Amino acid sequence: MGRTSDAKRKILDAARSLIEERGYSALGVAEICAAAGVPKGSFYYFFASKEALALAVVDEHWAAQKRAWTRVLTGEAEPLRRLRQLFEETEAGQRAAQEGCGTVSGCLFGNLTLELSNQTEAVRGRLQEIFDAQVDMVESVVAEARERGEVAVTDPREAARAVVAQLEGQVMFAKLYNNTGRLGPLWQNCRALLGTTETTLA
Amino acid sequence: MGRTSDAKRKILDAARSLIEERGYSALGVAEICAAAGVPKGSFYYFFASKEALALAVVDEHWAAQKRAWTRVLTGEAEPLRRLRQLFEETEAGQRAAQEGCGTVSGCLFGNLTLELSNQTEAVRGRLQEIFDAQVDMVESVVAEARERGEVAVTDPREAARAVVAQLEGQVMFAKLYNNTGRLGPLWQNCRALLGTTETTLA
Repeated sequence: MGRTSDAKRKILDAARSLIEERGYSALGVAEICAAAGVPKGSFYYFFASKEALALAVVDEHWAAQKRAWTRVLTGEAEPLRRLRQLFEETEAGQRAAQEGCGTVSGCLFGNLTLELSNQTEAVRGRLQEIFDAQVDMVESVVAEARERGEVAVTDPREAARAVVAQLEGQVMFAKLYNNTGRLGPLWQNCRALLGTTETTLA
Repeated sequence: MGRTSDAKRKILDAARSLIEERGYSALGVAEICAAAGVPKGSFYYFFASKEALALAVVDEHWAAQKRAWTRVLTGEAEPLRRLRQLFEETEAGQRAAQEGCGTVSGCLFGNLTLELSNQTEAVRGRLQEIFDAQVDMVESVVAEARERGEVAVTDPREAARAVVAQLEGQVMFAKLYNNTGRLGPLWQNCRALLGTTETTLA
């Protein structure tokens, strides 16, 4: 890898860590560059602004998370089994991150939503697209389960929104109490929200 | 009101508005004092630090919200009716705030949880106490409804946590999409989470 792309990579990694740790507003470009070990001049070679960097961090994180969600939610298992796996992987991911840095960092998109959505329209727009895509993915699985007579929902989109909202709310509490055990009831709550009729996953 | 308490009031009001608008980290004491129209010396007469001010803002907001939650949740109506009223008043409050400032500001406690809980243990501790108290209040109503045979939950505390998580998640989306309509399905989702058997509130 050449020196140039290496510097960009270092800036993205440092920004991602710092944003997860302390949020976006408290950060300055100089601090990000110091953490990345690159001269400040490099920053503006790659990014027009701190906001542009935040969008790049969000895009990169979503690209990875979207791959994971797609793998789980479009897999070969039965639809409700896939949804359950999504929660289990979410809990495992938060636990692994906690073991790495000592604290539950929560959901990068949720964190930035509450910190930034009223401050920059570019970030707000990007986060809306991401949550819309998450709801789309969950909705597809719910609709599939509905066709199989496994859930009792009348509006799969609204149900999918409720499931993603429950996920974000419980991840918030996992972060607040620094306790990934808070994510344990996610599947049971999801079943209640969907009115599952299927019993083998109880 | 004397000049002294007046200055403290102005600092608290300015800080509350600025925190709701832009979060805590991005703010400086000088900016808060400028917005409040008080000299910077006054700040340190009333508050030992910016963190102490944040705690005072949180405490004041919770004192008011706790009064409102207590009024609604310990009222004379049937338990599920009271819970429904809580969501309706939350939606009305967010709508009134949006009409005032143009944007849905969301939940001050949720915002600070995601922005700050991994940064200051004092704020984390205070927010934990507040959300514990919210869950306590919802749990009491759920337990009451359970005794009346109106809900199907086996664990009222876990159910109350799910309800508060759903509330926080949907308020997050109301903020992200700047749309209080996102709070409309709260009651239906709460009914699903509780497995309500009672039909008059459908």
